[in-house]
Amino acid sequence: MTSTEGTRVSRRKLFGLAGAGVALAGAGAAAGIGIDKATGSAEAAVNTVGFDGEHQAGIVTPTQANLHFAALDVTTKDREKLRQLLKTWTDAARRMTAGQEVVAGGAVDGGQYAPPGDTGEALDLPASNLTLTIGFGPSLFDGRFGLAGKRPAQLIDLPLFPKDKLDPARSGGDLCIQACADDPQVAVHAVRNLVRLGFGVTEVRWSQLGFGRSSSTSRAQATPRNLFGFKDGTNNIKSEDTDFLRDQVWAAPGDGPAWMTGGSFLVARRIRMHIETWDRETLEGQQQIVGRTKGTGAPLGQTAEFDELDLDVGGAGGEKVIPDDAHVRLASHQALNGVRILRRGYNFVDGSDGVGHLEAGLFFLAFNRDTRKQYVPMQQALSSKDAMMEYVQHTGSAHFAVPPGVSGTGYWGEGLFS
Amino acid sequence: MTSTEGTRVSRRKLFGLAGAGVALAGAGAAAGIGIDKATGSAEAAVNTVGFDGEHQAGIVTPTQANLHFAALDVTTKDREKLRQLLKTWTDAARRMTAGQEVVAGGAVDGGQYAPPGDTGEALDLPASNLTLTIGFGPSLFDGRFGLAGKRPAQLIDLPLFPKDKLDPARSGGDLCIQACADDPQVAVHAVRNLVRLGFGVTEVRWSQLGFGRSSSTSRAQATPRNLFGFKDGTNNIKSEDTDFLRDQVWAAPGDGPAWMTGGSFLVARRIRMHIETWDRETLEGQQQIVGRTKGTGAPLGQTAEFDELDLDVGGAGGEKVIPDDAHVRLASHQALNGVRILRRGYNFVDGSDGVGHLEAGLFFLAFNRDTRKQYVPMQQALSSKDAMMEYVQHTGSAHFAVPPGVSGTGYWGEGLFS
Repeated sequence: MTSTEGTRVSRRKLFGLAGAGVALAGAGAAAGIGIDKATGSAEAAVNTVGFDGEHQAGIVTPTQANLHFAALDVTTKDREKLRQLLKTWTDAARRMTAGQEVVAGGAVDGGQYAPPGDTGEALDLPASNLTLTIGFGPSLFDGRFGLAGKRPAQLIDLPLFPKDKLDPARSGGDLCIQACADDPQVAVHAVRNLVRLGFGVTEVRWSQLGFGRSSSTSRAQATPRNLFGFKDGTNNIKSEDTDFLRDQVWAAPGDGPAWMTGGSFLVARRIRMHIETWDRETLEGQQQIVGRTKGTGAPLGQTAEFDELDLDVGGAGGEKVIPDDAHVRLASHQALNGVRILRRGYNFVDGSDGVGHLEAGLFFLAFNRDTRKQYVPMQQALSSKDAMMEYVQHTGSAHFAVPPGVSGTGYWGEGLFS
Repeated sequence: MTSTEGTRVSRRKLFGLAGAGVALAGAGAAAGIGIDKATGSAEAAVNTVGFDGEHQAGIVTPTQANLHFAALDVTTKDREKLRQLLKTWTDAARRMTAGQEVVAGGAVDGGQYAPPGDTGEALDLPASNLTLTIGFGPSLFDGRFGLAGKRPAQLIDLPLFPKDKLDPARSGGDLCIQACADDPQVAVHAVRNLVRLGFGVTEVRWSQLGFGRSSSTSRAQATPRNLFGFKDGTNNIKSEDTDFLRDQVWAAPGDGPAWMTGGSFLVARRIRMHIETWDRETLEGQQQIVGRTKGTGAPLGQTAEFDELDLDVGGAGGEKVIPDDAHVRLASHQALNGVRILRRGYNFVDGSDGVGHLEAGLFFLAFNRDTRKQYVPMQQALSSKDAMMEYVQHTGSAHFAVPPGVSGTGYWGEGLFS
């Protein structure tokens, strides 16, 4: 298992702790794990997430406060260059997630003869619970690299769902890098340096920043709110749900190609939320659409956030209190024959849309064991019946096979090349 | 003066502190002020910045970790509606910066008859040192609102500087709102709710998120790094520099219209940084361009970051160690007849540029007493001589008159209407 406790001391110089923050840093270390929205950064000052493990970090790791996600295309047809890059990336990721520069002494080496080995903007910053998670898109298996026979059956080209309005410039990709950290500069630094190492082999296809993690992945975390103002992800699979993780998240032996065992499948969807329209809906209307109470997050008909969702509870007149088209009903494991997914998306605001509104939404990220049987039926139900579809639009879409974790001298995706 | 210590308890429900973070929150309170990059958020859990004061908060306030900046256009020609909105905004800003909902009970009121008075996504979050700062663009004084005679002479239409490549969709605006906070969701919530209150009177013209504050505004803060990997803003005016603030930041009686006394002039410039090109420059080359050592931030020829910049120090061969076209030389008060500005910009990454690169840069924000005499000559020198211009491009530009602070029953810009 990936360590979520990790070590407490970053090897990067902690200039940032030299001032008034010292007492706090000590307190953060004492508090140990339990990343909270309100306190994440202080703990981040001393926290690192272990890189090696059966699974990649950044999936069940308690969701960090900030995201930088990049999809890349491979620009070479040279299989060996791709393989070498994956080795290089693995070494760099192991270093950066430990709070180190991408190469030893990197930011200030080179002198007059070479560019610095690290771009330097994270030089004074702690590891901030940085995780780096890599994935392989369907297009990587198109034959350019002799990998067609390695494509998992689960790694489908996602269907076009009703009301999808996908922008090709925000969709797809041969590879993805998910960087999560409690400091956005640390996440940005990590993606930038991996992209830089890929020069001549890969280039950025699209990239998305996010904040305000829209789901928790640990019971130690409070449930955050999305930009509709509702608690989101109450029923998410949590890192403590070992049975659900085994059954619904991790690829198992026999699922498909052996190189994916211990991996997972990642669906990324950029969901524009029409927040100005939503904000003109009544509270009652909003709650009917979501199926939860806005303040507490309790399912309609219940009293507390974590009360079991009861789809059949009746109101005074005998009608169901959770409408047939409520989001919580359609996305529930009760309505989906037990299907669950592990979500770890982020809110985003990408400036404005040019016609007077904020370009805001949810960058949805979900891990599942078989996208065909989990995400697809869930999204089919939502996109065709969810009352919330009036207020959202899917504008980007991508699907990636996330290989298992590495240890020792292994590297990301090694199994693809053996 | 605006209080930067503020009160310690948010009146918003601190659900977020219910878990493992409690010990830390206590530590944050004990540590008091001294917002550090590495520790900002934990202190934010309990910190608020006072709203009332001679000057608006968000100028000399120690720079928070995150920015949401919005420029708006006024869509009505009704002067009274504009005046009423400024009153409404002032009340809402006073509440939100205290960690309260935009109206009492706002997020969960309304029921079946009205939309909630607050959009709710910050309901469980502390004030996070939120500051809200408003400004008025040159176009507000064009005659629509009978304000032409109130326009300060300092509020010029900025000239086009050499190499500017300005996007009209990222430039200008009748009004601006600068929201800074140690939690991006809190900053986004604040802008969104002010925009919402402006429905029918204003609409968003452009909007920019930022992170990794690119300058310090207090000696208690470590100097952060920009996306070129260098410490940035070492010689910035700090909140402790009361003489510089008086002489170079705050509008004084006699400067112009009385309504601006205690205010300042804000220049906003979106500066795209070609980080991929920069990353191929040698360390020595980067340092010659900046004029500082990358690791320590010391001026070339000196040994420590805060050593006095000496533009004449000679090297072994007698030549100047700080080149004639070094950024630090051209931007220095020594080279600009004593001119200084107060910077509080932020780094940004706005996805990718469609041709394989990250759309990254610096969202430059600077406050000065007279833009004609401070920012303009500084930028003229930089845009025509700075070696760094090879690696940057100004893609957005705006200028705002930032009125003084308010107290009691006053409201933002009240002096415009009296």
